[in-house]
Amino acid sequence: MKILVTGGLGFIGSHTVVELLQKDYEVVIIDNLSNSSISVLEGITSITQKSPQFHKIDLKDKLRLSEFFEEHHDLDGIIHFAASKAVGESVEKPLLYYENNINTLVLVLQEMRRKELSNFIFSSSCTVYGQADELPITEEAPVKKAESPYGNTKQIGEEIIQEYAKTNPQFNAISLRYFNPIGAHKSTEIGELPIGVPQNLIPFITQTAAGKRKELSVFGNDYPTPDGTAVRDYIHVVDLAKAHIVALERLINAKNKKNYEVFNLGTGKGNSVLEVIQAFEKVSQQKLPYKIVDRREGDITAAYADTTKANTDLGWKAELGIEDSLKSAWEWQLKQE
Amino acid sequence: MKILVTGGLGFIGSHTVVELLQKDYEVVIIDNLSNSSISVLEGITSITQKSPQFHKIDLKDKLRLSEFFEEHHDLDGIIHFAASKAVGESVEKPLLYYENNINTLVLVLQEMRRKELSNFIFSSSCTVYGQADELPITEEAPVKKAESPYGNTKQIGEEIIQEYAKTNPQFNAISLRYFNPIGAHKSTEIGELPIGVPQNLIPFITQTAAGKRKELSVFGNDYPTPDGTAVRDYIHVVDLAKAHIVALERLINAKNKKNYEVFNLGTGKGNSVLEVIQAFEKVSQQKLPYKIVDRREGDITAAYADTTKANTDLGWKAELGIEDSLKSAWEWQLKQE
Repeated sequence: MKILVTGGLGFIGSHTVVELLQKDYEVVIIDNLSNSSISVLEGITSITQKSPQFHKIDLKDKLRLSEFFEEHHDLDGIIHFAASKAVGESVEKPLLYYENNINTLVLVLQEMRRKELSNFIFSSSCTVYGQADELPITEEAPVKKAESPYGNTKQIGEEIIQEYAKTNPQFNAISLRYFNPIGAHKSTEIGELPIGVPQNLIPFITQTAAGKRKELSVFGNDYPTPDGTAVRDYIHVVDLAKAHIVALERLINAKNKKNYEVFNLGTGKGNSVLEVIQAFEKVSQQKLPYKIVDRREGDITAAYADTTKANTDLGWKAELGIEDSLKSAWEWQLKQE
Repeated sequence: MKILVTGGLGFIGSHTVVELLQKDYEVVIIDNLSNSSISVLEGITSITQKSPQFHKIDLKDKLRLSEFFEEHHDLDGIIHFAASKAVGESVEKPLLYYENNINTLVLVLQEMRRKELSNFIFSSSCTVYGQADELPITEEAPVKKAESPYGNTKQIGEEIIQEYAKTNPQFNAISLRYFNPIGAHKSTEIGELPIGVPQNLIPFITQTAAGKRKELSVFGNDYPTPDGTAVRDYIHVVDLAKAHIVALERLINAKNKKNYEVFNLGTGKGNSVLEVIQAFEKVSQQKLPYKIVDRREGDITAAYADTTKANTDLGWKAELGIEDSLKSAWEWQLKQE
């Protein structure tokens, strides 16, 4: 079984490549290295003792992409991670986000159509729910108008895939709505590699604990949550990676009755920022300096997944908890010196 | 003043090019001829006695587009008509619509950003309103979830432009929401040139009257309208074309207070299908064979524009009525033998 992983050297992509290789899939990686490092390839090889094929291709390069599919017309599945992912940056550079996240998706799907390829997994996000009216969030919760171009690209991406699937029954796709992926591989060979100032909580925490950042900013303590800080569902990236394998198997074995499905991927448990800080201090034995600052525009109060559908239909469940995740993130950080 | 008109050989594009040339604008046309004919260029020249520059470029060809903007970095405005426009086809070929309507929009805007160009007019549609709750429809009416990929591309297009304008105050854009453009230039040198079976009412009527189609199908006579047939706001394409000129002048002279605006372009009057048939029979002195068939999926009951905003802020008003429009469409049809 030959699987293409776009963005395969990114955070979630690289962990998924490892799981694929460990399950003996043949893996072909495309990555443009715009937000990832070629060194990740060594990490993958070091863990798996296998060398996936790697192509440095920018998916916006339509000609190069066509050439690739001309050569690799025999793919059994495509896991499409490649995308830009910083909410704040997307507000400043919306065109970049539409080009990187929508144009490339359309180009990849066009190539799949031409080569009659059918199994496609899309990286979506819980951001499509906005602030959901009910918690935990099921897949039936309404998709709300996106707060940022980034969020909009995920909604639009899902729409494009769904509309394409509707009139092309031979096409088979799953959108996975990630909650908040954190952590690193237990080998500490791969993990999250934010470029510049981290936009997400966990890399900011680990960099602060490592002395690279002066202190952590907690954005708002006046949310209507038990301790006033925002609540999220933090899921270990290896659990997330494993979900891609079961989703892929579901597509390949055509176990799905519909040719387009959506699944939430989270732990089902919400943790506040202060709870995360406490858990981090516990597993790292580090004191974490932090200050409360104003809420960040566009941030929601609370989100955590109802994982019933993934548990039941995919037969997948997150196995690792917040402490496992934070411990692995910290060990990864310590190795980055 | 040098203006780029993409899709400038299409139905609305060609009429707008004529108005631009008659107002002494320098016009550069890009068209890929996928749904238009090079003969339209002769029609334009015949009317205006001027020859606009023409480039056969497919906007999906990023390299070619970059080369074009490298050469034409001094554009004073861009009117972006180029897009696919058949609702039914978009359901069958959604990827084609996203690639033709969204990818190309993003690529054009990216080039404008690189060259620091600022005046942009986007062809949007009343389809963004779906079936509006209140008639006539103002620009404040909510945008409803699109019924088709075509409609979705218009909504998404507006979002992309709006988001880009938000953080780029030097960028200046107007989306024009067309109601139902019909008719042809009074010279009968240019008009609507549907390829294959027309999807819209007027070309189907004129082709039927000309004996090219056996009879007209009226889709549904059980709508909650006075005579049971669907109601639309039919606007003469020359009126529509003139609106583009005033919108362009508004942008160039920076008369707009916001750097992104939306305007409805319609007559403000709704006509039912049966009313259109009667009006056509009157102006053409032809009996039109028609039959009532089932409603067409996705068709709404009634839509017509509140044109107050365009009247007031653009200082534009449709001058031609339904009979003028149908007469011009019929004269155009007669010339197609």
